[in-house]
Amino acid sequence: MKTQRNCLIAQSGGPTAVINASACGVIQEAMGHNEIDEIYAANNGILGVLNGEIFDLRAEGPHAIEGLRTTPSAALGSCRHKVGTSEEYDTILDVFQRFHVRFFFYIGGNDSQDTANKVDQRARQDGYELLTIGIPKTIDNDLACTDHCPGYGSVIKYLATMTMEAARDTEALRTADPVNIIEAMGRNAGWIAAGTALAKRDEDEAPHIILLPERDFDGNAFKARVDHFLSSLGWCVIVVSEGVKHPDGSYLAQQAGEFSQDSFGHRQLGGAAMYIKDLVEREVKVKARFAVPSTIQRNGVHFASLTDSNEAYLLGQRAVQAACEGTSGKMMTLERTCDDPYRCDTGLAALAEVANGEKLLPDEWIGGDGFSLTQEFLRYARPLIQGELPAIIEGGLPQFVRLKKKLI
Amino acid sequence: MKTQRNCLIAQSGGPTAVINASACGVIQEAMGHNEIDEIYAANNGILGVLNGEIFDLRAEGPHAIEGLRTTPSAALGSCRHKVGTSEEYDTILDVFQRFHVRFFFYIGGNDSQDTANKVDQRARQDGYELLTIGIPKTIDNDLACTDHCPGYGSVIKYLATMTMEAARDTEALRTADPVNIIEAMGRNAGWIAAGTALAKRDEDEAPHIILLPERDFDGNAFKARVDHFLSSLGWCVIVVSEGVKHPDGSYLAQQAGEFSQDSFGHRQLGGAAMYIKDLVEREVKVKARFAVPSTIQRNGVHFASLTDSNEAYLLGQRAVQAACEGTSGKMMTLERTCDDPYRCDTGLAALAEVANGEKLLPDEWIGGDGFSLTQEFLRYARPLIQGELPAIIEGGLPQFVRLKKKLI
Repeated sequence: MKTQRNCLIAQSGGPTAVINASACGVIQEAMGHNEIDEIYAANNGILGVLNGEIFDLRAEGPHAIEGLRTTPSAALGSCRHKVGTSEEYDTILDVFQRFHVRFFFYIGGNDSQDTANKVDQRARQDGYELLTIGIPKTIDNDLACTDHCPGYGSVIKYLATMTMEAARDTEALRTADPVNIIEAMGRNAGWIAAGTALAKRDEDEAPHIILLPERDFDGNAFKARVDHFLSSLGWCVIVVSEGVKHPDGSYLAQQAGEFSQDSFGHRQLGGAAMYIKDLVEREVKVKARFAVPSTIQRNGVHFASLTDSNEAYLLGQRAVQAACEGTSGKMMTLERTCDDPYRCDTGLAALAEVANGEKLLPDEWIGGDGFSLTQEFLRYARPLIQGELPAIIEGGLPQFVRLKKKLI
Repeated sequence: MKTQRNCLIAQSGGPTAVINASACGVIQEAMGHNEIDEIYAANNGILGVLNGEIFDLRAEGPHAIEGLRTTPSAALGSCRHKVGTSEEYDTILDVFQRFHVRFFFYIGGNDSQDTANKVDQRARQDGYELLTIGIPKTIDNDLACTDHCPGYGSVIKYLATMTMEAARDTEALRTADPVNIIEAMGRNAGWIAAGTALAKRDEDEAPHIILLPERDFDGNAFKARVDHFLSSLGWCVIVVSEGVKHPDGSYLAQQAGEFSQDSFGHRQLGGAAMYIKDLVEREVKVKARFAVPSTIQRNGVHFASLTDSNEAYLLGQRAVQAACEGTSGKMMTLERTCDDPYRCDTGLAALAEVANGEKLLPDEWIGGDGFSLTQEFLRYARPLIQGELPAIIEGGLPQFVRLKKKLI
């Protein structure tokens, strides 16, 4: 009897609106490959591997698998566990061996690509035959070696829409609430906050000020910009990235407390908008409101980018094809060949190169005032938000799938 | 030469996703009535009347008027000005006389209906011929005499969707971030927070706990519910209304500072979610995240309720019809005749009855645990979120109209 050659899919880190589209691409493609026998998933990312919590994706049925494309967040479950010890890597390979896993598809951000890289290296060292392919996923858009990351197009499409809609509120109520502040995710990279610049169809439109972590916060220059818009327009909408820092390196959103760091040592941010609100009320002496969309922004599948969703799916498909051709130790990448008309193909990058890298917003894409983005950035970002993923609605609300996850 | 008989439309208070649909209904209906000559709008609500800032809606063009249906917030401009003095009412009637205003349509919430009522009474006293009709508008759904208020269906459809989407994030990341808290608007009425119960399609679905201002906050009972969901499901999503209070009457969101009250003396709330987050982390000892959608929730025209939008439009139309039949001193109301199939007609209520009333969530619609809603509430709310207003998208983002507002 032939030994099984199974594949295992896992999702990791912060969810996005399209991470399940990548999983769907892997699963549907794997079903068409004779090289692959069982199609397994780990429950909650690498934690599921470590705990031996593996479930069979063929048992979920084709309707549930197709429904992944319109279901936000990580349907396989995710985690923020950092694989730290050599023993943990031993356990991972033990579990792989037990479940006859010969293909490992890991959908995640920087830390996940690092984990995938170490699993790949350890398998080689131990002489365990394994093909490991990383699939990029992060709203933060901060992965090295790829033009952009699946999840980014959808988060900026949704956050730009929120900004446009809330800005009309501020404009209408400017005699009472003339300043509004919206907090963007993105950790130390300003990509998400920058993406809201797409909302600005003309000079007077919001957002009027974008605060990026790539620029130290300059309170006086900021106050002068707010004053400018209040006197010229009578209202001002500000997007502030959660990762903006003071010149001394401290976060605007500095938070104390035992849960302020995750297990990777990343600081959990939140509170930048409130800081700016207080500053505006104290220094500019007008009333300010603020919004913190938090995890809502990254799960907006009811208004996700079709381009983003399709690319996420394609990367999943191509990952299976690459592995079936014998590729390992690589992450799938997106390679843009043209801005207009937008064309993008997939490629491969070494996991080692991607692992734990961080791609910041190019300095030359930030406007001279430090509060805006250049046309070059807009040319980069605009194609990523095109098209709307058709949402599945039932009774006025989105309809999602939930996997049965019967553990093996 | 015949003296002009003009109409004036104004919008007031917090914007909604469909307040412009009501304006559109008034304008398009008024265009078909010979009794009405010019169709004017006040810039920024009653402030525009007081300042004589009046503009001609016929000059805006039919495309812009039709585009109001898919443009959020208050396109005529809004305000939070409380008409207080007798001199201000004199000024309003002077301006009406100057612009030959004989029809006054005021789209707003409690305070606006109060203002409309006083304008109507003053006109009668002074013998100035004026027909005043109020058109209800408030996401808070707290107006007396009407089954529900335009704006409510859309805010709960959108907030329930946000809750469903963010809940999937919490579920997927429950090993890291097991608790998520979403703050709902609604001041002292729990209608909006209650509406997120529609997201809960089965027992395990979010929101697991809904904190309503109609119930004093009971920290121990709350903690027990959180513990229950964490041990049974491993995750817990909480919707907290901004207006929830401690048993001593103080707000969870108690905020100090000079801008903490608007000119009606309403306390500006915000911070309830952060209070709950801190409490969960301190008392339950797990990490919690929170989101404050703030004004984003009331402007979500990209996913607005078609039922809500159509009713808002209809009320505008019927207001004009009522005024042209000689009605004055009334607010248009929505009168439901059947839940399933949903049928709703319009009616009229005396402005004096509506003015400054506040309709709380019926006590019997709150579940026995104080953290949930009954089937009766769901039967009431479900029809209001049905259908999706077709959004106008250009280049991946919504397209709104902006009126030229050339002042006369």
